Amino acid sequence: MTQAIRIIGIDPGLRRTGWGIVETLGNSLRFVAAGTIKSDDKAALAIRLRQIHDGLAGVVGQQAPDEAAVEQTFVNKDAVATLKLGQARGIAMLVPALAGLDVAEYAPNAVKKAVIGVGHGEKQQIHMMVKVLMPKASFDSEHAADALAIAICHAHHIQSPAARLARAVA
Amino acid sequence: MTQAIRIIGIDPGLRRTGWGIVETLGNSLRFVAAGTIKSDDKAALAIRLRQIHDGLAGVVGQQAPDEAAVEQTFVNKDAVATLKLGQARGIAMLVPALAGLDVAEYAPNAVKKAVIGVGHGEKQQIHMMVKVLMPKASFDSEHAADALAIAICHAHHIQSPAARLARAVA
Repeated sequence: MTQAIRIIGIDPGLRRTGWGIVETLGNSLRFVAAGTIKSDDKAALAIRLRQIHDGLAGVVGQQAPDEAAVEQTFVNKDAVATLKLGQARGIAMLVPALAGLDVAEYAPNAVKKAVIGVGHGEKQQIHMMVKVLMPKASFDSEHAADALAIAICHAHHIQSPAARLARAVA
Repeated sequence: MTQAIRIIGIDPGLRRTGWGIVETLGNSLRFVAAGTIKSDDKAALAIRLRQIHDGLAGVVGQQAPDEAAVEQTFVNKDAVATLKLGQARGIAMLVPALAGLDVAEYAPNAVKKAVIGVGHGEKQQIHMMVKVLMPKASFDSEHAADALAIAICHAHHIQSPAARLARAVA
């Protein structure tokens, strides 16, 4: 008897960090919750990072995921934007690690492939497919939808035969 | 009677994060401690960020600083390096914020000006001046020396007449 695995996907950003929780059992996928953490853009940077930390720590504490996944970041933006994103991403990876979770990283193409079947596509296509894969999914922002897509990608990854075998013998 | 203010300066990096603690009372400056937190470069990113968090949280808990300062980061490196640094810097700003401290940010030129008197100069010059300003200072890495320089910069900043007045009427 396999046990359900609860996954948190996180889409980090300094202004808005999306999170999405899915549960996978065998080949099935179930939407649990999703949301967006906003930081106060008038506050000092350290305060904003703390807001992201506190928000995510609250979600992790409440939803008790078993595993976490974060998208690997595009670094083709300007350096200032990359640094900002990096700071938020550091917090997004730290919070589940502090809760003792493994944090997987997936390239954007891998996320797209898991959700829409090919390694390219528009954001809108991803959001539509999240709804197709999990009709009960609701999300309050694009970041939350992206976070659900990342969680789905991780679910597919751990549903693979090789991953299942590794789990069975662990 | 003024009270001594204990400052932690932090020089973040994914491999090595330097920290330095100084105490300022009136115009005087006293070295307290300095060190370097290393992350395991064979570990997963989330684990490494947690190592930085745990190391810094230990220092903040043990040394009980009143205020914190972090250098504003140069972003003229390549994007991958900037993202890595950003992630470490996010943790460096978060840890003192979680402890309730204000976290000041200073441009590299401001740090140089505070320590060597002008807004430019070599790293070696900064490290030498840290020793001149605080003969008892000892540091185990360039990151620790840089962290002390950042703490000294913040000490100068809060020793300014305007800052003192603000404190007196607070």
